[in-house]
Amino acid sequence: MSGQICLNLATTRQQWGFAEAVDGCLRAGITAISPWRDQIEAIGLSEAARIVRSNDLRVTGVCRGGMFPAETPAGRQANIDDNLRAIDEAAALNADCLVLVVGGLPGSSKDLPGARAMVAEGIGATLPHAKACGVRIAIEPLHPMYAADRACVNTIDQALDLCEMLDETVGVAIDVYHVWWDPNLVQAIARAGRMKRIFAHHICDWLVPTRDMLNDRGMMGDGVIDLPAIRALIEAAGYHGPQEVEIFSHDWWRRAGDEVLGVIKQRVASVC
Amino acid sequence: MSGQICLNLATTRQQWGFAEAVDGCLRAGITAISPWRDQIEAIGLSEAARIVRSNDLRVTGVCRGGMFPAETPAGRQANIDDNLRAIDEAAALNADCLVLVVGGLPGSSKDLPGARAMVAEGIGATLPHAKACGVRIAIEPLHPMYAADRACVNTIDQALDLCEMLDETVGVAIDVYHVWWDPNLVQAIARAGRMKRIFAHHICDWLVPTRDMLNDRGMMGDGVIDLPAIRALIEAAGYHGPQEVEIFSHDWWRRAGDEVLGVIKQRVASVC
Repeated sequence: MSGQICLNLATTRQQWGFAEAVDGCLRAGITAISPWRDQIEAIGLSEAARIVRSNDLRVTGVCRGGMFPAETPAGRQANIDDNLRAIDEAAALNADCLVLVVGGLPGSSKDLPGARAMVAEGIGATLPHAKACGVRIAIEPLHPMYAADRACVNTIDQALDLCEMLDETVGVAIDVYHVWWDPNLVQAIARAGRMKRIFAHHICDWLVPTRDMLNDRGMMGDGVIDLPAIRALIEAAGYHGPQEVEIFSHDWWRRAGDEVLGVIKQRVASVC
Repeated sequence: MSGQICLNLATTRQQWGFAEAVDGCLRAGITAISPWRDQIEAIGLSEAARIVRSNDLRVTGVCRGGMFPAETPAGRQANIDDNLRAIDEAAALNADCLVLVVGGLPGSSKDLPGARAMVAEGIGATLPHAKACGVRIAIEPLHPMYAADRACVNTIDQALDLCEMLDETVGVAIDVYHVWWDPNLVQAIARAGRMKRIFAHHICDWLVPTRDMLNDRGMMGDGVIDLPAIRALIEAAGYHGPQEVEIFSHDWWRRAGDEVLGVIKQRVASVC
């Protein structure tokens, strides 16, 4: 079982800008992308939207909104305002969702429950605009090793609890790298399916050893994650969208973009 | 609130062997230790036991048993046999418990549920001997970033589920480094208290950034963990034993042992 591939443009961020990445995808027969906001900004939103439309691309997500916690009310409002702009960008690209990396502890705070409350409040504040724009919001639970500095939402269940507090505009982006270890994974994915909140499925692999906490993700098949098992859970839960390949890796950033896409296609066909 | 300190001897493993660490602890007025098996082996079990007895030391735990998964039945039996020897050592030192780092994926396996089943089976196989020796077994849930290669038990709740499957000989060692991020931490510690299964409380801190996944733990107060909040939960759950300081850190291993113990005492008094 392989299915449709999406290229998250972080995977080739050192090789290609937005337009080059789209060209590379089209050469490889890949017609779904997930761009990052800095890549959109570099080419300009209207040009990015034109490229998407003229090539009939599916944009599975815009990466990323979030980063809600801040030490002051003004700081939190500035973060909300930035998310409103991200929603506009997702709408302009007709993206399936805006992906959120929700943020960690603000400043020198050690108050994790407090940061989590700021996240709930921040997402809630963006929802009227998201609804008005027809943009869905996908909370991406991040691996617990990022709880302090990147995202204090660290399991699918925790994200789904937030979804329940908010509304059906909000779902989850399930990235195998962040959730593969979860003892409750089977039940959590099933719950997300019952709630109809699986908005995206990201893949890569967990390397042993992992030499860098940020940029040493593996190509599918090179690590320990049972990718077919997780994909089966996700499909059984009702999500049949693309598998979005998102690999932050100094190793893969050193290879030619076309070569990386070739390996991705082989691996999705053989090990995913 | 400070309370009694225990030195986990990994904290000074580059500076001191077993005997030197005990001397250092006594100079600092610390009368509880938690040694590692290689340190016990280096000095000899009977000499280690003599030092413990003659100085009336409390041994809060022996580190470590575990590492149950293996690719073959023979390999798993060898691991169980090694745990039986570890139980003998814990008994000889009159330790509060044998601490388990349960092990990760065996060989090239990607079957995490399978590894978890091997852990349950392995612990179960050691229990008759543990009971006969009067040794309690403390499962230490490890941070999810170690799920592949060190421990496939990654939350307090998962460890408590195992405790329920087994019996009252088995409890948990709660190390703040591994569990501080858990969205379910409050409820999980309370559950451990209701089950009377908190056998140890380890402390250190989570540094931002963390530069090394194994050996970059922080001294209490240098990171982001809300140590007093977690200690309050643990005491409310009925555990009033020592706070065991376990810091794997290239930085702290470079300092003189007496200096490290001095800082530990200051920090436990001021930030824990």
